[in-house]
Amino acid sequence: MFSQTVEYALRTMTQLAASAPAACTTEQVATATQVPRAYLSKVIQGLCQAGLLKSQRGTGGGISLARVPSEITILEVVNAVEPIERIHTCPLNIQTHGTHLCPLHRRMDNALASVEMAFRNSTLAEILAEPTTSRPLCHIPCAPSSTSSSPPDPESV
Amino acid sequence: MFSQTVEYALRTMTQLAASAPAACTTEQVATATQVPRAYLSKVIQGLCQAGLLKSQRGTGGGISLARVPSEITILEVVNAVEPIERIHTCPLNIQTHGTHLCPLHRRMDNALASVEMAFRNSTLAEILAEPTTSRPLCHIPCAPSSTSSSPPDPESV
Repeated sequence: MFSQTVEYALRTMTQLAASAPAACTTEQVATATQVPRAYLSKVIQGLCQAGLLKSQRGTGGGISLARVPSEITILEVVNAVEPIERIHTCPLNIQTHGTHLCPLHRRMDNALASVEMAFRNSTLAEILAEPTTSRPLCHIPCAPSSTSSSPPDPESV
Repeated sequence: MFSQTVEYALRTMTQLAASAPAACTTEQVATATQVPRAYLSKVIQGLCQAGLLKSQRGTGGGISLARVPSEITILEVVNAVEPIERIHTCPLNIQTHGTHLCPLHRRMDNALASVEMAFRNSTLAEILAEPTTSRPLCHIPCAPSSTSSSPPDPESV
């Protein structure tokens, strides 16, 4: 039910939140998140356009969060790349239904609402602070890009 | 988050539940559900393969539910055409995570679980019995196919 794009966007944001406030190169994020380079560039582009990421060219630049991790929810990340489309009016355009959904579409919308609520109540900071033996994307730390020998690829963001 | 295929499958099953135990032609279902004929044939094929629908050729035949509406849940319909894929193991194959999901994937799986539970607890019969001013697909009743002048199209199911 969650697309590859949503999965990749969440990995990307989580990785950058773990590195915040430092910036990372696209290459570093690609390695840490296991997202193919070309796919990642598109995901990052969407997240930049949504105002969740910012990119800075040149030495010491890279991609970083536009806000602090405690102010970015999972819901914002999901909606930035593939908005959860709630059902507000009858999808069949039955005039007598309008905004009064039938029991089928009411149940579908309730399910969407429950996902929305769960994701609205989780920030990137909470995900990273939660005590766990399985830290997200823990296998490859993303070193601050200022220590990287190569500047970020301007084509990639 | 719910695909067009899921939406169409649920409309189809709801329409046939409303007509049960009578059979309908694909044409009748297409009209009632506003699903394009070619798309509907594929959806019906999937629902037949999953054992939720049965088709009977010849005069008085058509498509009908394989079980009574009180024994078919929304979850079964959704899973028949686009299974909800729960997250059982780390999608990044991080060895130390295994089945112990990190907080990110745990939240994603919890959201999937909530949708699964909501859909598992709703049957087609409940959807049709619920008091409402917005009866599902109410605008065009599906007449029993035995009164239809044309037999069902055997190519369509």
